[in-house]
Amino acid sequence: MAKAEKTLTDLFETTLRDIYFAEKQILRALPKMAKKAKSPELANAFEKHRDETEVHVERLEQVFEMFGATARGKTCDAIVGILDEGKEIMEDFAGTDALDPGMLAAAQAVEHYEISRYGTLRTWAEQLGMKDAAKLLDLTLAEEKKTDATLSQLASMKVNAKAA
Amino acid sequence: MAKAEKTLTDLFETTLRDIYFAEKQILRALPKMAKKAKSPELANAFEKHRDETEVHVERLEQVFEMFGATARGKTCDAIVGILDEGKEIMEDFAGTDALDPGMLAAAQAVEHYEISRYGTLRTWAEQLGMKDAAKLLDLTLAEEKKTDATLSQLASMKVNAKAA
Repeated sequence: MAKAEKTLTDLFETTLRDIYFAEKQILRALPKMAKKAKSPELANAFEKHRDETEVHVERLEQVFEMFGATARGKTCDAIVGILDEGKEIMEDFAGTDALDPGMLAAAQAVEHYEISRYGTLRTWAEQLGMKDAAKLLDLTLAEEKKTDATLSQLASMKVNAKAA
Repeated sequence: MAKAEKTLTDLFETTLRDIYFAEKQILRALPKMAKKAKSPELANAFEKHRDETEVHVERLEQVFEMFGATARGKTCDAIVGILDEGKEIMEDFAGTDALDPGMLAAAQAVEHYEISRYGTLRTWAEQLGMKDAAKLLDLTLAEEKKTDATLSQLASMKVNAKAA
């Protein structure tokens, strides 16, 4: 019997597993970044986002359930690359006033990756008729966008000014 | 003599080299994606963005000049990871109706990476007093955002509808 052609349903599942892996990596990276931040506002933003990320992981588990699949990650090369770049900056700029701006930039690259993935998944969930899943994905999308806006504000104001 | 402490200027240069490398990789990936797209609108969007990307590379070279540095790239693990994921999707979904949505999602991940980097570089250029460089970076930022919006529109309307 020929294997059935892959569909948007398969693409949805693959991408869900990709962001599930990514969120778990982010969950591990954020406390390290919070610890190294010189600015208390930045440390606070990282800690707050860590707590939100825990909720995002739970929401993804709910989406897996709605979809009728087991929640399991799939190595996401994109987030591995983004976080590796962040680590390199953290090492190269350790102890300098440019560390905070560097971590801010790394965190914004992470946020934008998530924004693209949640935007895509929400659209696909709608197209697949999964209204409740689309709502959950949209909630997380809104939070990722808000975090990115907070980081942009920090980048323009306090944190970078010190390093100039 | 002790090595001078790294500053925002060094961070700016490192990140400029990172996005310069990334743009050149994107320049190579887009024609391949355009060739595989089933939807003429999507192929057209990829081709148009390829042409824009050439201009983005030239603008970066101008920014390097304003900054007084030689234009040279630095391996960007993030874009390598993002493009590798895209390639994997293109292989796994080759010949199916889900290929276009998959390539759209990959392209949006690329756009969002660029949006985060150009946003960061523009802010830093302003803080370093490089007004002309900030303007050039802002021009590209606006074009990346516009491309992302075009891709979002395509994703919501035609392209994915076929694959559902």
